[in-house]
Amino acid sequence: MTYCLAISVNKGLVFASDSRTNAGVDYVTTYSKMHTFVWPGERICILLTAGNLATSQAVMNNIRTDLEKPDSKISLRKGKHLHEVAHYVGHLSQVEQRQHADALEKSGSGGAEASFILGGQIAGQSPEIYLIYPQGNYISASPETPYLQIGENKYGKPILDRIITPATSLEDAARCALVSLESTIRSNISVGPPLELAIHTSDVFKTPYHQKLTLNSPMYKSMQKQWNEGMHRALGRLPRFEWELKQAMADE
Amino acid sequence: MTYCLAISVNKGLVFASDSRTNAGVDYVTTYSKMHTFVWPGERICILLTAGNLATSQAVMNNIRTDLEKPDSKISLRKGKHLHEVAHYVGHLSQVEQRQHADALEKSGSGGAEASFILGGQIAGQSPEIYLIYPQGNYISASPETPYLQIGENKYGKPILDRIITPATSLEDAARCALVSLESTIRSNISVGPPLELAIHTSDVFKTPYHQKLTLNSPMYKSMQKQWNEGMHRALGRLPRFEWELKQAMADE
Repeated sequence: MTYCLAISVNKGLVFASDSRTNAGVDYVTTYSKMHTFVWPGERICILLTAGNLATSQAVMNNIRTDLEKPDSKISLRKGKHLHEVAHYVGHLSQVEQRQHADALEKSGSGGAEASFILGGQIAGQSPEIYLIYPQGNYISASPETPYLQIGENKYGKPILDRIITPATSLEDAARCALVSLESTIRSNISVGPPLELAIHTSDVFKTPYHQKLTLNSPMYKSMQKQWNEGMHRALGRLPRFEWELKQAMADE
Repeated sequence: MTYCLAISVNKGLVFASDSRTNAGVDYVTTYSKMHTFVWPGERICILLTAGNLATSQAVMNNIRTDLEKPDSKISLRKGKHLHEVAHYVGHLSQVEQRQHADALEKSGSGGAEASFILGGQIAGQSPEIYLIYPQGNYISASPETPYLQIGENKYGKPILDRIITPATSLEDAARCALVSLESTIRSNISVGPPLELAIHTSDVFKTPYHQKLTLNSPMYKSMQKQWNEGMHRALGRLPRFEWELKQAMADE
């Protein structure tokens, strides 16, 4: 499995991903799932991938090949709107899955399905994020649901639901994304480090801020420690039961 | 769906459950999933149920019938150890599921599967909790894994993984269980109020503390408010990015 997420706030976009892939429990490997494409001054596209690694790698290869071909009808760079790019990625994914679906089904080795998050900005347009389903269709985020997730999405959802609104700062959204990932890593072994984080500030058409965090990175360790302390502190402030209050009064 | 959990700490046991059941999205109802049996001075059994409502109701009915029959070979009261009681509940569940499995499969209306958490204490023995799988087999908690969950278990797992150890107080474990449930309710509509909470103090063989919390209960509202504030406070203490530190220095 995998866990990737993207957050859309007023000031820009945040992307975060883990790096664990596994084929069963006895073949666990590390792959980056964050792919950044920048045309300075023109457009930025970031893709996050989850699901069958062969499918997502093939889609990424085809995306790169289409970018090199001057006569390709559509590519990450040629789509006029980001939803056209989402449609294109969904199509590549479907084509790739169809090629191998029969063989995979016969061998019983799991499906060819893959999901993608596509985010970025085209000059003159707003930043956007899209979730592209294995079936090739796609949805965008909204002010009411300002984040999208792929892979093991349940563990890290409550913190997003509590914190993220369009008014959240890019930095707080990034910290929240890291906590969401760290919570998932702690509770599910199919999601693992290093973590990757990217921050795109609206209307800044250069390479987005990017950071890779291993378990030994000072920022990761400090985040983990502070968050654990914060959880214990928050728990300590929750309402007391009647008998605790009585006990506290008796102790005074 | 449903979400129920039990926590075993040195001082005793905590049980918590939601009350939502649904058959599809257009038939949502409210049922208690916590069933408490007390024989003062002798033994305490608490059962939490998840899965097919017909199966779990039938199992509870059979449990009550067996308690009334003086000649029943095994019952909640007759099992010499709690693992015998777990085995008995698993057996009742399997018998019930087998009766309806074919018809349910033919109608395509979902499975007959149900899961249970059984916890309690028999005088002279230690308090214990068991998770009984739909297949009738069962596992107990351990000092390394001091909690068990059934139903929608992912959303509420990170907070348990961060907080709960055998040394956690009963009251803190209860607050943590409520947060785990509240986080799940917020993120998944198949889990809903009222919440039920029970606390069994080790070696106290009388009716355990029980509380039912609706969305309007002052304790629930206060917990929700305090926890949200605690999350924001914890996020505010996480490490800053380089440019935030520079900005802060420039502002001074």
